[in-house]
Amino acid sequence: MIKFEEISPSDFFYRNKEIAGFENPAKACYTIVREFLENSLDACELGGFLPEIEIYMKSVNIEEKRLRIKVIDNGIGVPHDKIPLAFGKILYSSKYVLRQHRGIFGLGGKMAVLYSQITTNNPFRVISATPNNGYISFYELKIDILRNEPIILKRSKIINQNGWHGLILECEFIGDYLLSKKKIFEYLFQTSIAVPYARIYYQDYEGNALLFERKTDKIPPIPEETLLHPKGVDLEMLKRLIKINPNLPLNRFLAKNFQRIGQKAAEEILKLANIEFEKPVSKLTEEEIVRLYNVMKSYPFKRPSANSLSPLGESFAIGIKETFNPEFLSYDMREPSSFEGHPFIVETAIAYGGDIPIPEQNEINLFRFANKIPLIYDSYNDVSMKVIKNINWSIYKLNIYQEPIAFFVHICSTKIPYKTLGKEYIANQPEIYKEIELSIRKNARLLSAYINKKRIIEYQKIRYKYLKEYIEKIANFACILANEDPKKIKNNIVKLVEINDAS
Amino acid sequence: MIKFEEISPSDFFYRNKEIAGFENPAKACYTIVREFLENSLDACELGGFLPEIEIYMKSVNIEEKRLRIKVIDNGIGVPHDKIPLAFGKILYSSKYVLRQHRGIFGLGGKMAVLYSQITTNNPFRVISATPNNGYISFYELKIDILRNEPIILKRSKIINQNGWHGLILECEFIGDYLLSKKKIFEYLFQTSIAVPYARIYYQDYEGNALLFERKTDKIPPIPEETLLHPKGVDLEMLKRLIKINPNLPLNRFLAKNFQRIGQKAAEEILKLANIEFEKPVSKLTEEEIVRLYNVMKSYPFKRPSANSLSPLGESFAIGIKETFNPEFLSYDMREPSSFEGHPFIVETAIAYGGDIPIPEQNEINLFRFANKIPLIYDSYNDVSMKVIKNINWSIYKLNIYQEPIAFFVHICSTKIPYKTLGKEYIANQPEIYKEIELSIRKNARLLSAYINKKRIIEYQKIRYKYLKEYIEKIANFACILANEDPKKIKNNIVKLVEINDAS
Repeated sequence: MIKFEEISPSDFFYRNKEIAGFENPAKACYTIVREFLENSLDACELGGFLPEIEIYMKSVNIEEKRLRIKVIDNGIGVPHDKIPLAFGKILYSSKYVLRQHRGIFGLGGKMAVLYSQITTNNPFRVISATPNNGYISFYELKIDILRNEPIILKRSKIINQNGWHGLILECEFIGDYLLSKKKIFEYLFQTSIAVPYARIYYQDYEGNALLFERKTDKIPPIPEETLLHPKGVDLEMLKRLIKINPNLPLNRFLAKNFQRIGQKAAEEILKLANIEFEKPVSKLTEEEIVRLYNVMKSYPFKRPSANSLSPLGESFAIGIKETFNPEFLSYDMREPSSFEGHPFIVETAIAYGGDIPIPEQNEINLFRFANKIPLIYDSYNDVSMKVIKNINWSIYKLNIYQEPIAFFVHICSTKIPYKTLGKEYIANQPEIYKEIELSIRKNARLLSAYINKKRIIEYQKIRYKYLKEYIEKIANFACILANEDPKKIKNNIVKLVEINDAS
Repeated sequence: MIKFEEISPSDFFYRNKEIAGFENPAKACYTIVREFLENSLDACELGGFLPEIEIYMKSVNIEEKRLRIKVIDNGIGVPHDKIPLAFGKILYSSKYVLRQHRGIFGLGGKMAVLYSQITTNNPFRVISATPNNGYISFYELKIDILRNEPIILKRSKIINQNGWHGLILECEFIGDYLLSKKKIFEYLFQTSIAVPYARIYYQDYEGNALLFERKTDKIPPIPEETLLHPKGVDLEMLKRLIKINPNLPLNRFLAKNFQRIGQKAAEEILKLANIEFEKPVSKLTEEEIVRLYNVMKSYPFKRPSANSLSPLGESFAIGIKETFNPEFLSYDMREPSSFEGHPFIVETAIAYGGDIPIPEQNEINLFRFANKIPLIYDSYNDVSMKVIKNINWSIYKLNIYQEPIAFFVHICSTKIPYKTLGKEYIANQPEIYKEIELSIRKNARLLSAYINKKRIIEYQKIRYKYLKEYIEKIANFACILANEDPKKIKNNIVKLVEINDAS
């Protein structure tokens, strides 16, 4: 007899911790640093605070590989009564709204504390203060994994005397720091490229201290909540919105719930779907909903608004220049586009020469970012890698495997379609694929033109060098034939060579 | 003010369908075929029935890319009253027991019906009959995604007149069949290598009909439920087992809940952990549990039992031979090992020549299988690929990028640590990495020896060819010097050459 049973979301992720980036002790160590840092950056940006983040990696027991991490930020903190659920209940989060943030529904941070618990049995500590709230909260928590509920071990409040706000997280876990160190440094370094307005300090038990100083005081606007773009919204989402707004007449429902649907577009859509304009949405039949959905799929909406998105922009190019000092750099930002209702923007850059290394054998230099975080692991299945591998580079006369060429891709969106909850790489989503390809091809054309010009100039130089060696003799010889001044003839020959090369 | 909310597991997977293999309409089509087929194979094997599976892919509306899939199997079916939850509630499954099966807690099939619903709004149909049960069940279902509950639209029972048992699933979805067709065929083809005792028939609306006939009637033993191997069990699992068996004395608790712990091992472990043998587990302090856990981590347990595992064995090598007709094939199966308490077995093979193609530029020929299913997508981040890329192939004098060499890896376990819920690739789990590496290196040595011998023989042949051309002349010349019969001298020279080559 086959036994059926139900498990909690917590238990599901406990049993599948690999999908969240906890497949081995080295990766776990990297993932914990990363998840805490990303949560901190989100929390700072949501409050409009210039991020100040400190991370301490201590060793509790070298032999057991038992580590203790402490992360301190100056973000908006978590309200006192929300702390237990925010850290101790999986699928409970503040990140379900349509806003550009780094995490996937706050799952990463919770997986980090869950991993801490299953490897050390220790509770994790949270110290939190929201801005202008008069007190600081202290908690010691565990997770009841079978029930997906927090267990509160200690809880207290003290008066906030100096107005500090932010979050301090502390936990112990088993991790392989020696094997993950290099990746952590690389991650921090690339983060500092993507978030030049953050100050990040990292210190480990080996005596390494990395300070990434703020490069600019200009913090980008706080990411706004946004409406779905109507293109690509699926039936489930459409029906959810109908349930939330049962009494709205259909034309107002469309304008209220989607961006880029004004009065005129709403009327056109409803005419095409053959539904009354003023019908309250709760009165729609299933067939009408499907008709509406089908029209929305193909209606030529305007591109989504970029208000809710925060691309890297200029600072991307600056970051690349400062880091690699390339001989040539081409940067491109695409117009906003959308998939499944989510607006997104793709930015790419190609850099050549300078400190860009020749790739290792059969590899490609690719640096990936998504919502301002670097993606370090598992690049080979990423949509960007697929784009690059599928381009026929011979038409650009570029050998991406053997020349000092590097690709940079940043995608920002209200949803990043990661293939793994560990946010290792991005799915082959057709709209995103297309935008990356167009952007990379544009940069490739410019690099190709640059290198071709460079080749011509080099050829010219060699030719000129050769000619220069013989020009004296040719001139002398010619002047004998023409009975002219050798200098004049020499100048004429030089001019001829130059005209010829320029054509 | 930041808003916190909770979402259901269904809603979570709806919002993150990429992680389950539904990132675009082509991949969705592939994933649906695959998930249904794998569920069917599991259902047949659990009953000990030789699988007979039929899959029909119909087109409902070409322009809208609306497809209808129907899958028929002869497995154990799903009991009448379990059908709604088994198909309409995520994280409810029969696959939480420790047994080698293909799926991850039945998630794939549910994601398929969820995807069907959000793209077409249509219910899915289930027809099911369990063996010897007298009736056949009919259902039409949807999923309430927000609540993670099934919605029953139709339900009935009829008398089972001819004793049929199995499952018929039918649903409509939007998918790109033209783009996924090739991968589906490849998937079916590789499945037939891994499951030679199955008969699989596939028919699409374009008129393609693929029949993979059964190659053997020998069905492997029904995979057994097993106990955890104590090595690598984490604290959470240890505490769960204690909760389930509160009154057992500790020594009996260990023997009952883990494989490879007999009376003697239990006593040794408890001595090392400094805990009383007879103490009831519910009386253990937190410190004692952590001590017990620490001892279990390092105790030299015997390798896990292979009873619960079903490797491909001989049929793996046969499948490869029949398919690629290689000039050389080396197959190896490792002893059982374990990670996180789960036993696993690694089998690998290396094939050379015959119909093995030279890899495409910068690629590696790698065929991956896990619990008897082929893994087709996203090979580049797979643990097997990492192993292969990290080996220094020059020591084997093999150029895996430019020679007709193919690698085959099969892992079977009570848990496959996939990185994605779409089961695209396997995490870099250290124990698994090590076993794959040892196995591949063994095969690599044999291939290396074969190729070296082949090179020597070829060299000999060339040498002999040259010598043969001159041997007559040399013999004639020598016989003049020695005044001997030229034939005798020729034979002597030939012998000399052969002796020299053999040394």
